[in-house]
Amino acid sequence: MFDRLWPLDRSLTGEGVRKTHDVLAEYLPLERIEVPAGTQVFDWTVPPEWVQREAYVIDPEGRRILDVAENNLHLVGYSAPFRGELSRADLDEHLHSLPDVPDAIPYVTSYYHHTWGFCLSQVQRDALPEGTYQVVVDTAFDSDGSMTLSETILPGETSNEVLISTYTCHPSMANNELSGPLVTTFLYRRLAALPNRRLTYRFAFLAETAGAVAYLAQRGEHFKQHLVGGLVATCVGMDAPPLYKRSVGGETAIDRATEQVLRERGAEHKVVDFYPWGSDERQYCSPGFELPVGCLMRGNFFKRPEYHTSLDNKDFISFAALSETISIYEAVCMALEHNIKYRNLVACGEPQLAKYGLYPQVGARRQVEQERQDLMWLLSLANGKRDLIDIAGRSGSSMERLREAAEKCQAAGILDEIEETI
Amino acid sequence: MFDRLWPLDRSLTGEGVRKTHDVLAEYLPLERIEVPAGTQVFDWTVPPEWVQREAYVIDPEGRRILDVAENNLHLVGYSAPFRGELSRADLDEHLHSLPDVPDAIPYVTSYYHHTWGFCLSQVQRDALPEGTYQVVVDTAFDSDGSMTLSETILPGETSNEVLISTYTCHPSMANNELSGPLVTTFLYRRLAALPNRRLTYRFAFLAETAGAVAYLAQRGEHFKQHLVGGLVATCVGMDAPPLYKRSVGGETAIDRATEQVLRERGAEHKVVDFYPWGSDERQYCSPGFELPVGCLMRGNFFKRPEYHTSLDNKDFISFAALSETISIYEAVCMALEHNIKYRNLVACGEPQLAKYGLYPQVGARRQVEQERQDLMWLLSLANGKRDLIDIAGRSGSSMERLREAAEKCQAAGILDEIEETI
Amino acid sequence: MFDRLWPLDRSLTGEGVRKTHDVLAEYLPLERIEVPAGTQVFDWTVPPEWVQREAYVIDPEGRRILDVAENNLHLVGYSAPFRGELSRADLDEHLHSLPDVPDAIPYVTSYYHHTWGFCLSQVQRDALPEGTYQVVVDTAFDSDGSMTLSETILPGETSNEVLISTYTCHPSMANNELSGPLVTTFLYRRLAALPNRRLTYRFAFLAETAGAVAYLAQRGEHFKQHLVGGLVATCVGMDAPPLYKRSVGGETAIDRATEQVLRERGAEHKVVDFYPWGSDERQYCSPGFELPVGCLMRGNFFKRPEYHTSLDNKDFISFAALSETISIYEAVCMALEHNIKYRNLVACGEPQLAKYGLYPQVGARRQVEQERQDLMWLLSLANGKRDLIDIAGRSGSSMERLREAAEKCQAAGILDEIEETI
Repeated sequence: MFDRLWPLDRSLTGEGVRKTHDVLAEYLPLERIEVPAGTQVFDWTVPPEWVQREAYVIDPEGRRILDVAENNLHLVGYSAPFRGELSRADLDEHLHSLPDVPDAIPYVTSYYHHTWGFCLSQVQRDALPEGTYQVVVDTAFDSDGSMTLSETILPGETSNEVLISTYTCHPSMANNELSGPLVTTFLYRRLAALPNRRLTYRFAFLAETAGAVAYLAQRGEHFKQHLVGGLVATCVGMDAPPLYKRSVGGETAIDRATEQVLRERGAEHKVVDFYPWGSDERQYCSPGFELPVGCLMRGNFFKRPEYHTSLDNKDFISFAALSETISIYEAVCMALEHNIKYRNLVACGEPQLAKYGLYPQVGARRQVEQERQDLMWLLSLANGKRDLIDIAGRSGSSMERLREAAEKCQAAGILDEIEETI
Repeated sequence: MFDRLWPLDRSLTGEGVRKTHDVLAEYLPLERIEVPAGTQVFDWTVPPEWVQREAYVIDPEGRRILDVAENNLHLVGYSAPFRGELSRADLDEHLHSLPDVPDAIPYVTSYYHHTWGFCLSQVQRDALPEGTYQVVVDTAFDSDGSMTLSETILPGETSNEVLISTYTCHPSMANNELSGPLVTTFLYRRLAALPNRRLTYRFAFLAETAGAVAYLAQRGEHFKQHLVGGLVATCVGMDAPPLYKRSVGGETAIDRATEQVLRERGAEHKVVDFYPWGSDERQYCSPGFELPVGCLMRGNFFKRPEYHTSLDNKDFISFAALSETISIYEAVCMALEHNIKYRNLVACGEPQLAKYGLYPQVGARRQVEQERQDLMWLLSLANGKRDLIDIAGRSGSSMERLREAAEKCQAAGILDEIEETI
Repeated sequence: MFDRLWPLDRSLTGEGVRKTHDVLAEYLPLERIEVPAGTQVFDWTVPPEWVQREAYVIDPEGRRILDVAENNLHLVGYSAPFRGELSRADLDEHLHSLPDVPDAIPYVTSYYHHTWGFCLSQVQRDALPEGTYQVVVDTAFDSDGSMTLSETILPGETSNEVLISTYTCHPSMANNELSGPLVTTFLYRRLAALPNRRLTYRFAFLAETAGAVAYLAQRGEHFKQHLVGGLVATCVGMDAPPLYKRSVGGETAIDRATEQVLRERGAEHKVVDFYPWGSDERQYCSPGFELPVGCLMRGNFFKRPEYHTSLDNKDFISFAALSETISIYEAVCMALEHNIKYRNLVACGEPQLAKYGLYPQVGARRQVEQERQDLMWLLSLANGKRDLIDIAGRSGSSMERLREAAEKCQAAGILDEIEETI
């Protein structure tokens, strides 16, 4: 799947995005949303669709170089069409490279300032001979085109919703961005396999920023009413400790759920407060929405030299890490799924556990004691106001163990769920 | 008093409990509450009263061993009647000992699973010869009997109440349990000796768990309306630092009062959050009540090898520690007694202390300065919303010094009490 | 200005105060408030005005000593009139000196206990010969006099007010007290020079305690309705780290503003909770008012040997420190001035900064990045509920940088102010 998605010429808009969503749609059902160019979405206008046909340079020795067909990072994103002959010096004003990372082709876009340019490694740039270069940038801006978004829903018993949001607007890069759509897709498949779901799960494949704004223009009011929590899936492919960036609210259900999952997991991780740059969490958290959406990454990719270059490739990410990320995302979804407010129906005095066959009997002594304590914590704190994350935090037990205790108590008829809509 | 209570054959119910309450009633007035066997109390049913007549074993050599008349821990609590001859091996299935604490007779009960058994030291068990044993367990379950609880009230000026709850259902053990009734009894006598009391004090001698549940069935609604705070007195006889277990609310008046007293005392102590096992605080704190009741112990007895064995005897506890515990409990009661919300009647600008003769004049300079500061803290913070524990915490002064300052200000007519009912 | 104010014979009342206010009135417009002797102000009665004519002692050798004309600390404040001959021993009962600071003349008053006395250095006292002393204390208490207060207002666009309160009742002392009126006067001049002010600023020159109480009797209700925050300016002349004593509320706007300013300044400083002694903050914070008024000092002067002695003189203070204090006070006023709740008008999704010409373009890269981040923090958090101090605290940016960002956004029409009255 990675290898099929890798070479597609993704951008903010265009055929590359559609081909990407076609591939994704083989793995999960997707509903396409085409937002016409020129549509006003809050403060933004959807740009004309970018048509890439071909782009390359012929060097003074007649060799075809910087061919976008070879590496789609070579062409500056949203380059305007151009054909002409330029001297080495004039061409140079349209070149982008990174002196500090001389082997990397940088990723450059110019969505709103019409120009053209090529990206290449510093090594290649330094070796370009003097002479006349022929430039071909065969692109177009199609005002009748559109921006392509897709979403899918896994319905649950309630209309309370969880959102996983990722983006498909970067060309051939692995951690930023293919790791996001891959984790999102396989998370879908895990959750789809559950026998039942209390919550509804929504998965969105957007263009970063403009796409997320356009998506909010359509779904924002719905989210205000139904969203329990959401995560932006980006930069999740490194074999590095999970890094959770809180929602702007900071103590919403998604923040509490993610932090509980990371605590329970025990391994190294980091949690940071919201800051207003990064990925689409800043759209979801903008003051007009302030939705409970955080961003769960692996490591701090933005500070790495590989960030936004050709070095962010298949070798850079770890498929084992990707798989682990899916499990962590799944655990967060399960924490939200099970984050119910329970009410002990035998609330006055301790329930006589033996009467309900709830005294754990079988198993190693340590496990029996643990089960008994989980039951007691749950029944003791289940006053209809505390949710399961509260009880997990206070007891030091895990969401899963408490959920098992809750199921036993519900089966015994001594525990009730408080129905809640957001 | 300890020596008279020690040998009585206490259990969840029965004559041993009544005899215990008879002895206690010589030290403080007690009102008996007999809850008939079979009474439904919330999730529990009061069990039939257990009648102990005699219980012993005749060993193959004709010696009478494991005689309950010698040590009432020998018989498993609530043992069903049995008479018969058993081989060493068959008898062994009814024996309980502790390999890790080989000299201790363990304390074992089987309230709700009808069986019989004997407890003995591992040393004695290992020495039991092969042969035939004659077993006599002359007990009975009296469905017309009852569970015995007692309480007494020290009335105060208001109906706001403080509860001290302890239990009398364990046979011959010192720290758990005689320390509790002893502290409760002598605390009663100290508080009874006060010339006046603002609060009403209630003292309850219960059976742990079932007795507390039955007691709440009678007093729970009253407590919801009147209880300012309560303490469960258990395991208070060790010469170990005070250990306070908070109420489930965690920041109620009893929590704040106890922590203030322990802070003022200065010596080592520990405060832990509520957890749903331990003693009767879990009944008072159950979600149907969530009463402000904590548990003030000395040390963590539950982790000691002496816990629930014959080694928890008179040598194990310290009568000096018991006496000190009474003082600490008394200080907590006084902290609640004096935890009034005051209103400075000269609230606009600083009162002119000299005008009211309130400028401290006599005494060492340090003491005069301290008195002046106490007056200023009190008058400065007494806005009718802060209580005296708040003011003590913020000022770093003590409840007693602030109370003295309050009395002077009230005498001078510049400080008022806010009347409050719970 | 310092040299003109230094020799004036200030006290709680009297001509020395009026002369002081006359000098001050040359630097800022002052409105005089004369509170008649005998006026009841809350718990206090304005004392009769103290008239000082002359006071000295003739020693046994005929030398005039302890002459108030030479150092106005020589006479105990509010000394009652006296003329007579006394032995060395009888005179000694009316003398005050400091054995531990033998070169210092102490500052002593006796406002409410009618007596007379002289203050002198321990060195001078030890050298007084035996013999007969002639004492002249030519003072009077004028029941038709008054207590002199002054205030001035710098009007702003709103009636929300900031108060700077200082006092003019101590004779020749520099840090306590001339530093206060000096800082207050020159702060007035700085704020008066501003092209416009959102807030109204009020400056009060009072007598400590009784004057502040009398002032509150006139302005207290107004302050309850209009005061955003206030500072008591006292002991601000030492070259020592700023020491901020919080208002009794502890988290009011003045507390948050002052702490933000001290944090931004970066240099060493200390913040302490309110305590009910010190200067006039205790009148403003008395329970009948609980106004948001703190006290911003330099160092802890009260613990120094120079405190309330002749050693608190021009050499003791630093005019550079005074000037720096004025800047800190000004910064606190500006923090309040700019502490607006903003509302992002492009609240749904991120505003497209480029569209409004808000993408910083010019300047060093670091500065451009900083400006961009300030804009993003502001727009991202400006939900109409957070004020600028909140946003500064959360972003780690400065009030000034965020204010600049706000001005740009307001100019671009994408940011609105929430109008608020206290």
